Amino acid sequence: MNHSLSIEDDIDGDTLHEECGVFGILGHPDAATLTALGLHALQHRGQEAAGIVSFDGQRFHSERRMGLVGDHYTDPATLARLPGDRSIGHVRYSTTGETILRNVQPLFAELEVGGIAIAHNGNFTNGLTMRRQLIADGAICQSTSDTEVVLHLIARSKHPSSSDRFIDAIRQMEGGYSMLAMTRTKLIAARDPIGIRPLVMGELDGKPIFCSETCALDIIGAKYIRDVENGEVIICEIQPDGSITVDARKPEVSQPERLCLFEYVYFARPDSVVGGRNVYVARKNMGINLAKEAPVKADVVVPVPDGGTPAAIGYAQASGIPFELGIIRNHYVGRTFIEPTQQIRAFGVKLKHSANRAIIEGKRVVLVDDSIVRGTTSVKIVQMIRDAGAREVHIRVASPMIYHPDFYGIDTPDADKLLANQYTSLKAMCDFIGADSLEFLSIDGLYRAVGGAPRDNAQPQFTDHYFTGDYPTRLLDRESTSNVRKLSVLASNG
Amino acid sequence: MNHSLSIEDDIDGDTLHEECGVFGILGHPDAATLTALGLHALQHRGQEAAGIVSFDGQRFHSERRMGLVGDHYTDPATLARLPGDRSIGHVRYSTTGETILRNVQPLFAELEVGGIAIAHNGNFTNGLTMRRQLIADGAICQSTSDTEVVLHLIARSKHPSSSDRFIDAIRQMEGGYSMLAMTRTKLIAARDPIGIRPLVMGELDGKPIFCSETCALDIIGAKYIRDVENGEVIICEIQPDGSITVDARKPEVSQPERLCLFEYVYFARPDSVVGGRNVYVARKNMGINLAKEAPVKADVVVPVPDGGTPAAIGYAQASGIPFELGIIRNHYVGRTFIEPTQQIRAFGVKLKHSANRAIIEGKRVVLVDDSIVRGTTSVKIVQMIRDAGAREVHIRVASPMIYHPDFYGIDTPDADKLLANQYTSLKAMCDFIGADSLEFLSIDGLYRAVGGAPRDNAQPQFTDHYFTGDYPTRLLDRESTSNVRKLSVLASNG
Amino acid sequence: MNHSLSIEDDIDGDTLHEECGVFGILGHPDAATLTALGLHALQHRGQEAAGIVSFDGQRFHSERRMGLVGDHYTDPATLARLPGDRSIGHVRYSTTGETILRNVQPLFAELEVGGIAIAHNGNFTNGLTMRRQLIADGAICQSTSDTEVVLHLIARSKHPSSSDRFIDAIRQMEGGYSMLAMTRTKLIAARDPIGIRPLVMGELDGKPIFCSETCALDIIGAKYIRDVENGEVIICEIQPDGSITVDARKPEVSQPERLCLFEYVYFARPDSVVGGRNVYVARKNMGINLAKEAPVKADVVVPVPDGGTPAAIGYAQASGIPFELGIIRNHYVGRTFIEPTQQIRAFGVKLKHSANRAIIEGKRVVLVDDSIVRGTTSVKIVQMIRDAGAREVHIRVASPMIYHPDFYGIDTPDADKLLANQYTSLKAMCDFIGADSLEFLSIDGLYRAVGGAPRDNAQPQFTDHYFTGDYPTRLLDRESTSNVRKLSVLASNG
Amino acid sequence: MNHSLSIEDDIDGDTLHEECGVFGILGHPDAATLTALGLHALQHRGQEAAGIVSFDGQRFHSERRMGLVGDHYTDPATLARLPGDRSIGHVRYSTTGETILRNVQPLFAELEVGGIAIAHNGNFTNGLTMRRQLIADGAICQSTSDTEVVLHLIARSKHPSSSDRFIDAIRQMEGGYSMLAMTRTKLIAARDPIGIRPLVMGELDGKPIFCSETCALDIIGAKYIRDVENGEVIICEIQPDGSITVDARKPEVSQPERLCLFEYVYFARPDSVVGGRNVYVARKNMGINLAKEAPVKADVVVPVPDGGTPAAIGYAQASGIPFELGIIRNHYVGRTFIEPTQQIRAFGVKLKHSANRAIIEGKRVVLVDDSIVRGTTSVKIVQMIRDAGAREVHIRVASPMIYHPDFYGIDTPDADKLLANQYTSLKAMCDFIGADSLEFLSIDGLYRAVGGAPRDNAQPQFTDHYFTGDYPTRLLDRESTSNVRKLSVLASNG
Repeated sequence: MNHSLSIEDDIDGDTLHEECGVFGILGHPDAATLTALGLHALQHRGQEAAGIVSFDGQRFHSERRMGLVGDHYTDPATLARLPGDRSIGHVRYSTTGETILRNVQPLFAELEVGGIAIAHNGNFTNGLTMRRQLIADGAICQSTSDTEVVLHLIARSKHPSSSDRFIDAIRQMEGGYSMLAMTRTKLIAARDPIGIRPLVMGELDGKPIFCSETCALDIIGAKYIRDVENGEVIICEIQPDGSITVDARKPEVSQPERLCLFEYVYFARPDSVVGGRNVYVARKNMGINLAKEAPVKADVVVPVPDGGTPAAIGYAQASGIPFELGIIRNHYVGRTFIEPTQQIRAFGVKLKHSANRAIIEGKRVVLVDDSIVRGTTSVKIVQMIRDAGAREVHIRVASPMIYHPDFYGIDTPDADKLLANQYTSLKAMCDFIGADSLEFLSIDGLYRAVGGAPRDNAQPQFTDHYFTGDYPTRLLDRESTSNVRKLSVLASNG
Repeated sequence: MNHSLSIEDDIDGDTLHEECGVFGILGHPDAATLTALGLHALQHRGQEAAGIVSFDGQRFHSERRMGLVGDHYTDPATLARLPGDRSIGHVRYSTTGETILRNVQPLFAELEVGGIAIAHNGNFTNGLTMRRQLIADGAICQSTSDTEVVLHLIARSKHPSSSDRFIDAIRQMEGGYSMLAMTRTKLIAARDPIGIRPLVMGELDGKPIFCSETCALDIIGAKYIRDVENGEVIICEIQPDGSITVDARKPEVSQPERLCLFEYVYFARPDSVVGGRNVYVARKNMGINLAKEAPVKADVVVPVPDGGTPAAIGYAQASGIPFELGIIRNHYVGRTFIEPTQQIRAFGVKLKHSANRAIIEGKRVVLVDDSIVRGTTSVKIVQMIRDAGAREVHIRVASPMIYHPDFYGIDTPDADKLLANQYTSLKAMCDFIGADSLEFLSIDGLYRAVGGAPRDNAQPQFTDHYFTGDYPTRLLDRESTSNVRKLSVLASNG
Repeated sequence: MNHSLSIEDDIDGDTLHEECGVFGILGHPDAATLTALGLHALQHRGQEAAGIVSFDGQRFHSERRMGLVGDHYTDPATLARLPGDRSIGHVRYSTTGETILRNVQPLFAELEVGGIAIAHNGNFTNGLTMRRQLIADGAICQSTSDTEVVLHLIARSKHPSSSDRFIDAIRQMEGGYSMLAMTRTKLIAARDPIGIRPLVMGELDGKPIFCSETCALDIIGAKYIRDVENGEVIICEIQPDGSITVDARKPEVSQPERLCLFEYVYFARPDSVVGGRNVYVARKNMGINLAKEAPVKADVVVPVPDGGTPAAIGYAQASGIPFELGIIRNHYVGRTFIEPTQQIRAFGVKLKHSANRAIIEGKRVVLVDDSIVRGTTSVKIVQMIRDAGAREVHIRVASPMIYHPDFYGIDTPDADKLLANQYTSLKAMCDFIGADSLEFLSIDGLYRAVGGAPRDNAQPQFTDHYFTGDYPTRLLDRESTSNVRKLSVLASNG
Repeated sequence: MNHSLSIEDDIDGDTLHEECGVFGILGHPDAATLTALGLHALQHRGQEAAGIVSFDGQRFHSERRMGLVGDHYTDPATLARLPGDRSIGHVRYSTTGETILRNVQPLFAELEVGGIAIAHNGNFTNGLTMRRQLIADGAICQSTSDTEVVLHLIARSKHPSSSDRFIDAIRQMEGGYSMLAMTRTKLIAARDPIGIRPLVMGELDGKPIFCSETCALDIIGAKYIRDVENGEVIICEIQPDGSITVDARKPEVSQPERLCLFEYVYFARPDSVVGGRNVYVARKNMGINLAKEAPVKADVVVPVPDGGTPAAIGYAQASGIPFELGIIRNHYVGRTFIEPTQQIRAFGVKLKHSANRAIIEGKRVVLVDDSIVRGTTSVKIVQMIRDAGAREVHIRVASPMIYHPDFYGIDTPDADKLLANQYTSLKAMCDFIGADSLEFLSIDGLYRAVGGAPRDNAQPQFTDHYFTGDYPTRLLDRESTSNVRKLSVLASNG
């Protein structure tokens, strides 16, 4: 099944990947359908697998599948297997743990105090450390997912209440997490102490909803209430009379929020409002600031679709250079290329993008991209633009250079594969890519685009460790081992 | 299998569909791979099925499958089953004939003079008439595709040479066709007498290629040579010494070319050059002309993605109103929604599009779309934009009103379902859609955008029958019966 | 899909295969269900594919699938797609024509006079000759099945009535055929002039049924009426008042019937009555006669399961030697072995059979088998019996030696692969197989077992060409070409 | 997937089912292939699912699939995913735990001391009691299989060695089990204290093998060494020098063996040697004893295939009445009937069996069956035999009446569904079934057939609780709850 995604190595391989989106609702008669729609709106956060767990008052029901939400969760048969007025769901791109079915979330456990399902966006920096400790203590891990560690901690907690057990468990974990849990009567939402990953609260027909981004509220016409705060745990519970109580707690000592900047740069959907800021506007601002920081004489501004489009619009507006679709995207690529031959694989970027010669030929082109990771795609795109007759090709990147790996839920290549670590000068990078000029947005330019103010170096408003190396938490697994991913000795295929 | 496409009724249902794209190459060692890549580039012309036939000097090899090119034709196993240095391929969206496997092209027949495969983009206006005649004469039709009629005519022709048989057959057919045929030694390309559907000739490593659009040449780095002319038949043949001869004939009395305007409005890929004109530029011109013909005071120009984007860029440039992404497209919808529940189906356009509130709220919005067919999607999009807080919504359509069905390969709804036939005034249409104003591009504005000159009413430069009712050929099937599609009495499922 | 059958090369590969069974019923409200049950009872006649065509008064409905009847034709959804009160069905093992879906019967054609479906058990000896003639005359053959030739002849016949067209068509064909045809109002059954393949008529609730063997009547509780006679065509027609007329004709000059002896030796189900004779009794008689012709001192009679069991019972009863299950059959082999590794393939016969050591060890064993084709399985079975400790192994074969290929619907290996043609003496064959003795039933012993009388050499009561070379018809295809199977130049995979 | 088995309710539903077979091998280069072959030979012990775990010196590899061994484990790709020189495998028919993929064995856990895989034939009588205790103690159970309980006990054991942990775990379990475990260096085999389920030890090329029955040794040409004794644990370990040590222990106080009689009556393959006795011979003896205990004047002895055949041969030999195949089995039924319509389901036994009228008509028939459970199938078979014209029908059952459910791995219907509990007299049972007479083998007749001596009531040689109610162990789960199976609250589908 992984094979069907292999062309991505060439095409989307030179981007970063987020691992998940979550959605949960309590007390609504159409819980599973609304969850499916919410996950569909969050599909950009993970396309490898999707799962929903519902509870119908008597039993929990679970459906977990490889593939898109629309591939499985829209037909009546599947939804009929998810009865009940409460459910949580998850879309997944894998960072830790191969994407095999038993890793697909939500994960479920039957506890002495009743069943519990959990869904998680983010990554723990002490996941392997905790897993080792649990195994030494007789736990059996079925998945290779870090999320299962939380389930074991819940199961082993001595608290009588499931919500106290949940809090007990997450207090032992470090890293980035936006997490939902569902018990027989409760829907629980939690964000890590500095709020690296987003999580918002909404309501529909008076029933509480939690989801990764506001776009999942918009699709079902739900109202945005507020962001779950960093370090906050919100416990919604259906009472015997059918009413729903909401109990918001901050079990951890409070720290300032530091949302991940890459949510703005690349991950979140342009129409989402993350941390109170519209993502499209933030991206357009990145382009505007980029035009100011790195102007160039040119004839056309061409976005690298689709990520670069908002910044390119901003760049064009600020520079006065016309915005044109000089690269056409083939929408029929992506999930579909099965085990391509080496020969077809070699076509790489051309399977997805083609130059629009009439716009490019004889022109000085400003190519605007959202970010550069390894740079391999940039090389191919510049070549394609040159082949189409461009007179000059200037690359403008709407984010800073990436030097460091992420450990909070973004799938980054090894540090030595990053373009920024392979060349010591901008000039050398530009030569590698084959452009006439190459410029990146500054850290302050990015902070201003998102939050209006430059970086507060004493207490940064966001986390930006991939650019700066300033990790906002301890990296326990990393400190304790040099080869942390090799724990599992079962190469299970079924 | 059709079920998996049903959500399209709600989402893409309110657009027009073209039925096919074709690609063929003669004498190249990587024939099947190049054909698969070419078909991938033509995927926008048909997503329901794809087929390739190759010839290896001894035997013909055929692979025909439901689904996308990338779903089947990229893996080594499939390509290994298509050996040989010549092949033709086809992507299909069905107009006549349900899309079941035996309708998928290329079609093949074993003739007394050797095998022949054919692939066809277009539609015959005398297909059913000819089919009836053939059946009365003892022919057995296996498909419900009109293309099979041509195969029977070739099989029954008394000419000794396969190319003469082919010409003999297509001379009996009327309508729109761009057709490829492959025999043991020949690759033949033909366009109907007025050239309704496009077909271009290219070359790679000195080997001839024919395909529907230039984008299929670009993806493989092939050189564009020229358009196949209307009424022209080009016969390429491998000679015993390996050289390839090219023989171009015009068996029909010459008429002026009348390419289908909808290729420019909607079907062709923006980066293709059709009839010598870049499609993106033509579309942008439509937007520019529309801005001149139908200006409006507004704050933002928002394209209805993805079709409306080039015209919106043109409209914005000509009007000076900023271009913004006010509607975000969810790229993960489309093929994937399987048998959605009625409840999910009701979400219709929101499964694919969402309003970007930060751009819309409080604004006077100009929505630019490429065309309006039934108008049902427009109603939902306007509602979505209003829900996002737009102060005014003005729709500008970059093509004229559609009044008449097509019979040359475009799948149009019944005439009485077309918006233009349901309301007698522009005002009534605008009220139905719920916009503050609604304007369409004029016929002359469209002609000028594409070809630079207004419509020559004596001898129109293009065919525009859906706008004008001026059909460029006889409509024989339509004249002879009121219920032409009910011929087949076999409801075959397998 | 063919791969899943490949293990058969090793296991069932050393037997003969029949290609089909047919079933049809007219005027019964449960037509498709009864057809499915009838085909299930005929499953031993063909396991590769099955098809049913029904007619509901308005439209024909067709379902054709690879695999067993029970794999597809028992669920409500499939049967619901086969409405109507008349249907014909077919199970297939391929002799000519690869088993790909478009070869699966019934075949259907839409004629000027209305649709017709046909299903055929047998093989034509002039099929390729006729096919060539049709292609020269402009026919397009979609399948590689000889049955399609009949369909073309029907389509091209100038008779106004479909039954006359059918008779016209089959009169042009030579060879062995039991054939059913269904038109809008008629169910037609026909057997070739000498009646090589069986075909019986029955009735259920007063409605006519035709099927290959009586076991298909028994399963649905239908009454056996009579065998369709050699050279007979029986036309059943629903009249406007709902009554059914039956019109039996003998269009050909009458010849004596010569049923295929292998129906008794191997193909027909033991509980069927073929040509008025119970098959189990005939097989037991073969064993009795074999005991008389080829006695041996031994301790146990062991059947080679399952074909040899009835003859082994007869042999044991006639000889007084105890019948014991010395070979145990593993029922879970067969269709299921997918592309086995070479290593697993080498286990060959042991995947299906195992020796029952407690019965074999130290014993003189008489192994009774129904027939020997290539002898390769016999070698392995003898070895297996010896490995289990048998003191002596005597093979007794309940049919004569096979010297000649069949051309009437039995899939025989090339003549030079037949054991009887590889060794000139019985002794040499016995040595090859590794047995202590080897004896075959005589031709007269076989005739007596089946019909009570020895072979009438002047006018044989059965056809026995594989034993004697006395082919009962012309072999036109064989005479006209040395390499008759290579006509098709399309290696189609989809 | 369960649906595909539903026809079994009608056909095989009136028999008992065993849940599993196991196979393991240590130190052989072809470990996985040999395991697949061994499981194929054990397929009669479970057809719903099969799994293999191998270890290659570095990693464990696991393949678990629904369906037959031959459906998955014979192709090179699957076997290539199971590298290594040691593996254990399992075939499963479910008793506790629905047959869903996560219940398919072998189960695997990664322990602090390294990975361990276990495979289990049998059932625990304290499984639910232990599971509850584990959950209260924070364990997370992923499967609904009792076998997982053992895995948790191993994981939680404080012994440093995996074999001591294994022994520690199984000492806490009660019931019937033949179990294999595989660690990085060891293959461990264990049988419960009274040896209810069989387990034998063999060797191939000097490498140890354990498997449920000797037929799994025979298929690969391995040598039988001895039965694993009741209460014995045999630990085979690969030493650093590649040699293999074998350490046999009896950790429990010794009790006499009491093998399950139903292995002889029904479950084991006829060619297997169980507890030193050939199963076919035991079954034939049952028929011989039955002929002596319950003689009848009749014309033919007819087995109910396939289970009744050996006893019918014995009955015929002892009575002198001829053995004949009066019932023909359709081998193409079984796994294949998918969701049959109610109408098809009503055909029940006729889908699988048909009467051979020529043998039955006018005859006095002795029908010999291996056992009668609910009797519903017997009713249908007697009716079928009468419909075929039998003058008299006498049923002889080669085992005693079944009164009590099993708790050691045999799937029995509720006690009140058993024929023996529905009628108080043999006469009433006979009337229900519709036979002219009905007789069962006596307990002593069965004991003599299997072991040569009558039942030692003081210390029975076998366990026969289904006949006698004399359960050989405590039934802890049953004592502690009346509704033990409702523990799981997750209705998981994926």
